[in-house]
Amino acid sequence: MQSKSVVLAQRPVGMPQDSDFSIISEDVAEPGDGEIQVQNVCMSVDPYMRGRMVDRKSYVPPFQIGEVLTGGAIGKVVKSKSPDFSEGDYVTSHFGWREAFTAPTEGIDKLGAIVADPSAYLGAIGMPGMTAYVGLLEVGALKEGETVFVSGAAGAVGSIVGQIAKLKGCRVLGSAGSADKVALLTEELGFDYAFDYKEGDLLSHLREGAPEGLDVYFDNVGGDHLQAAIMHMRPFGRIPLCGAISIYNDTEPSPGPNNLAMAIGLGLTLRGFIVSHFNHLADDFRRDMEAWVTSGAITAKETIYDGIEAAPEAFIGLFTGANTGKMVINF
Amino acid sequence: MQSKSVVLAQRPVGMPQDSDFSIISEDVAEPGDGEIQVQNVCMSVDPYMRGRMVDRKSYVPPFQIGEVLTGGAIGKVVKSKSPDFSEGDYVTSHFGWREAFTAPTEGIDKLGAIVADPSAYLGAIGMPGMTAYVGLLEVGALKEGETVFVSGAAGAVGSIVGQIAKLKGCRVLGSAGSADKVALLTEELGFDYAFDYKEGDLLSHLREGAPEGLDVYFDNVGGDHLQAAIMHMRPFGRIPLCGAISIYNDTEPSPGPNNLAMAIGLGLTLRGFIVSHFNHLADDFRRDMEAWVTSGAITAKETIYDGIEAAPEAFIGLFTGANTGKMVINF
Repeated sequence: MQSKSVVLAQRPVGMPQDSDFSIISEDVAEPGDGEIQVQNVCMSVDPYMRGRMVDRKSYVPPFQIGEVLTGGAIGKVVKSKSPDFSEGDYVTSHFGWREAFTAPTEGIDKLGAIVADPSAYLGAIGMPGMTAYVGLLEVGALKEGETVFVSGAAGAVGSIVGQIAKLKGCRVLGSAGSADKVALLTEELGFDYAFDYKEGDLLSHLREGAPEGLDVYFDNVGGDHLQAAIMHMRPFGRIPLCGAISIYNDTEPSPGPNNLAMAIGLGLTLRGFIVSHFNHLADDFRRDMEAWVTSGAITAKETIYDGIEAAPEAFIGLFTGANTGKMVINF
Repeated sequence: MQSKSVVLAQRPVGMPQDSDFSIISEDVAEPGDGEIQVQNVCMSVDPYMRGRMVDRKSYVPPFQIGEVLTGGAIGKVVKSKSPDFSEGDYVTSHFGWREAFTAPTEGIDKLGAIVADPSAYLGAIGMPGMTAYVGLLEVGALKEGETVFVSGAAGAVGSIVGQIAKLKGCRVLGSAGSADKVALLTEELGFDYAFDYKEGDLLSHLREGAPEGLDVYFDNVGGDHLQAAIMHMRPFGRIPLCGAISIYNDTEPSPGPNNLAMAIGLGLTLRGFIVSHFNHLADDFRRDMEAWVTSGAITAKETIYDGIEAAPEAFIGLFTGANTGKMVINF
């Protein structure tokens, strides 16, 4: 059995290019004792992977040239020599951008009974959804009736942040990068106010959408968005720092917000986090989010590319705004 | 009876100058019913007042041209027509940079029994000491055995931050602006490592003084210090944002730290505060700090200028490093 996979051909400089990636084909071994063979059914491409393509210290080690890129995947067990896994089990793994693999079961988790498409477990019911959940409710300490602004609001994390905030009785503002996405936010996802950050002045948009100011700014992008939000925060506002996609492709360090000293008088909290800091909440998250998705209270938006060959294009598309909701590769 | 006071003659641009201030003399009225007459014995000049000299929105309203500047003062009641105050009572007030005044008792607090010089109640046992106490223990959530770095460490707040951290069993680093101040920190105040921030590279100093990284950075200065500290924080570190003296005299907004995105992976918290956000801890603070000062566990450093005419020079000196510990005007 053969499996194609995507390796890092060279380190991207600035915006990633097709030529930074290459597709290889490998044999998939027969499973030995304690091993299973998995056929992936869908796979995740995520903005945080851009950081791992740079050779520097970070919270996860950098990818090496020639190495298969790693992202979350969901697959089905096709052969099992482990007593803990049966053929047909859905499993999640981080064994690389590949169609299939054989491996020991360490690091492979059974997904259990699923109540939505497998790809939802890469998105709304997966890592991005849990990032939204813990970032808004724990890091952002959201309270009912507050006003929330989320950037990258049409993305995998942002689209869930906004919908959870609405469920919690909050006023919700979002920014996105096109008129279509803005329409999605207000017409389909229930946002109270949304705007195209490429049109007009950020602060003017925030003042129009939240005349009384912001209690929580969920930051997916950094840069100008963060500076404008700080300018418009209410006293004791909270800013979960979740991502900084606006600077991931920068080749020089970008200056931070020039108004950070406003945090002093206003008593603002800026707190960075990644989802794995909150693994103890995984069961709560899955219970709540499965209920919300199956009841229709939360819409799990996805942008789906087909086949492993599309993975580099899908990944690059994360930085050009090609996705609405979670970007997924289906096999 | 006459009293001299200091008024804002014009708004400073950049570093304040003598000519931004003028001294006037006024009659002090006889107290009417419910009023008291107070002779100040000492008075505070503080960096935060620089912000109030600019005509912009801030957490306290700006000073007006021709208005008497306002800072904390401690005085003695010399005449009382209030049943709540007696001649000889020590009182704290914020009625301006003046030698004496007559006023209704609203906004005037009795100091009660004092266990140190009155000026200590403007410094270690006053607002700067309480800023250090709540900033380190509440905002910074300091735990025993952690490593703490404080900038402006020879100042009114920083000198107390470092000493409290030592009492809590922590390793303490401090930066200051002269060799004399550095010597004070390590030889007199018990800091484990101190350095002159004008000499060498900030990050190299931090690496030398704290090879394992920082758990808490108490930020009094902003700018380069904040950026270097972020670079050297340990996972889940906390950064109380207390002041940004390095930029108070800037005429253009200064860029923020270019590495703020590091807060994401490390799970860092940056939290701004001012002391009045924690007024509910005033009694705890006074009890603890009086005990520490009277036992000698904490040294209340002061730089004393004599007479109200010296107030502008003392205030300007805050930005040139003229003070060690609390800057006080004695009358």
